[in-house]
Amino acid sequence: MRATVVVRPKQGILDPQGQAVASSLRALGFPVDEARVGRVVDLEVDADDAVAARAQLERMCEQLLANPLIETFEIAVPQP
Amino acid sequence: MRATVVVRPKQGILDPQGQAVASSLRALGFPVDEARVGRVVDLEVDADDAVAARAQLERMCEQLLANPLIETFEIAVPQP
Repeated sequence: MRATVVVRPKQGILDPQGQAVASSLRALGFPVDEARVGRVVDLEVDADDAVAARAQLERMCEQLLANPLIETFEIAVPQP
Repeated sequence: MRATVVVRPKQGILDPQGQAVASSLRALGFPVDEARVGRVVDLEVDADDAVAARAQLERMCEQLLANPLIETFEIAVPQP
């Protein structure tokens, strides 16, 4: 089953990569106020249904894919 | 106007970060077949409407946010 996890820096957490992107875009002439950079992970997981897949993905996020201190995550699995 | 750009490695392009994630997840006991890692960029752009914002974001992707040789990008702006 295909699933997607999106990991973003939490609001208020410094995001140097986003700042670099925003400043580079402004240097190229684009009127950008702010940019924040996160990760998207597309996974092929072995699960019986979407509910089981989501439970598994939450554990993956907590253990490896996201740092809960500074990042939030969203999980998207195909609708059952 | 808030907008989101998702940049992913193209199909067939080697993704060492995704391979490392998949192998780490398997080492933790998760039954993962494949993982691909991309970037998500949330931007606050200064544009009159969604059409203008999308045109601007396409130019940003071509010039800075994505490498069109090895990456694809998707743009999401609020519906007009």
